[in-house]
Amino acid sequence: MLISALAAESGVPVPTIKYYLREGLLPPGRATGTTRAEYSEEHVRRLRLVRALAEVGGLPIARVRDVLACLDGATPLTTALGTAHDALAGSPAPEAPADGAEAAGALVADAGWRVDAGCSSLAQLGAALAALAGAGFPVDPAALRRYVRAADEVAREEVDAVPGEDTADAVEFAVLGTVLHEPVLLALRRLAQQHHSTRRFGAPARGEGGE
Amino acid sequence: MLISALAAESGVPVPTIKYYLREGLLPPGRATGTTRAEYSEEHVRRLRLVRALAEVGGLPIARVRDVLACLDGATPLTTALGTAHDALAGSPAPEAPADGAEAAGALVADAGWRVDAGCSSLAQLGAALAALAGAGFPVDPAALRRYVRAADEVAREEVDAVPGEDTADAVEFAVLGTVLHEPVLLALRRLAQQHHSTRRFGAPARGEGGE
Repeated sequence: MLISALAAESGVPVPTIKYYLREGLLPPGRATGTTRAEYSEEHVRRLRLVRALAEVGGLPIARVRDVLACLDGATPLTTALGTAHDALAGSPAPEAPADGAEAAGALVADAGWRVDAGCSSLAQLGAALAALAGAGFPVDPAALRRYVRAADEVAREEVDAVPGEDTADAVEFAVLGTVLHEPVLLALRRLAQQHHSTRRFGAPARGEGGE
Repeated sequence: MLISALAAESGVPVPTIKYYLREGLLPPGRATGTTRAEYSEEHVRRLRLVRALAEVGGLPIARVRDVLACLDGATPLTTALGTAHDALAGSPAPEAPADGAEAAGALVADAGWRVDAGCSSLAQLGAALAALAGAGFPVDPAALRRYVRAADEVAREEVDAVPGEDTADAVEFAVLGTVLHEPVLLALRRLAQQHHSTRRFGAPARGEGGE
């Protein structure tokens, strides 16, 4: 198909497709003339993937490229997940002050998790814990234990649901689940908070505090 | 204390304090001359709160103001939580296409949650589900059920941990937990994924895929 058909098929406008082509997020089409190229279903699929990572996952273009590189290469699953986590943590990765790093390390040790001591997720956890403590709102240890338990259950089931062995499909499944499901999880927690706070404290006065 | 002492005490630089004063995020000090004002411990506490909401929670200044207004007013807890959720959802709130809104509504009904049909969190859930489906990566129903269960457990325990009755302290506790704990939760899920994927698929090849 021509680029106009690719735009129609994928729902991505032609100028955006050209931008992705220039940025190397989309492989070039098969040249059929000096200014014409032919695109395939593979391009449609790739375009949707780029869109999902950028728009649902909120990743900047450079990070989308990192994640795509993992999906394209024969990257082992755990390495690919690390790249996805780095992409989500942003660049440069947050640096945790010593007290935050210590708190994060202790939490992970308590949980029995074996993780890379230099990974961006651990730095991010340490930075968040230190910022909360520094602002005078340290996270309650009981709340932390609840979060650890919930994260452990969700992640165990997510990883166990990865199909088959360490194949390209499994990598794609795991990486996309990691990146793209975060907005879903956060929205669900907020909805559940609304439900349970209404249950305990009564219905909200909408139209007063809302916008 | 003078503004210089306030900066030293809170760790927030003087120009940032002046910016917060101009934006109305911090009440003015008590004037003790034409260019001098006296600040109190209450200002230190408020500054830390603004910093936490802006830097840990990632809220833009206008949204920080909305959340502070809730904490300052005699806002009922469930209304205050709604304002915090709106602040997190961003402005303007995402609008869910019809299929996403329907999927989100069905999910919430299945969960047995009673929520405001017009709230930003429901719109956000619908937008995320529609974007995922539109990109060709619909969320697996079994994964959604796991997320709903995890969100329900976490939120129930969070709301039950809110101290006492519907007081200003309870509102602050609930709103800050909502806004400020999201980065902690996301980091914990990523760490748990790392642990469980290493358990199932082996250790990551660090130094190859990393940066």
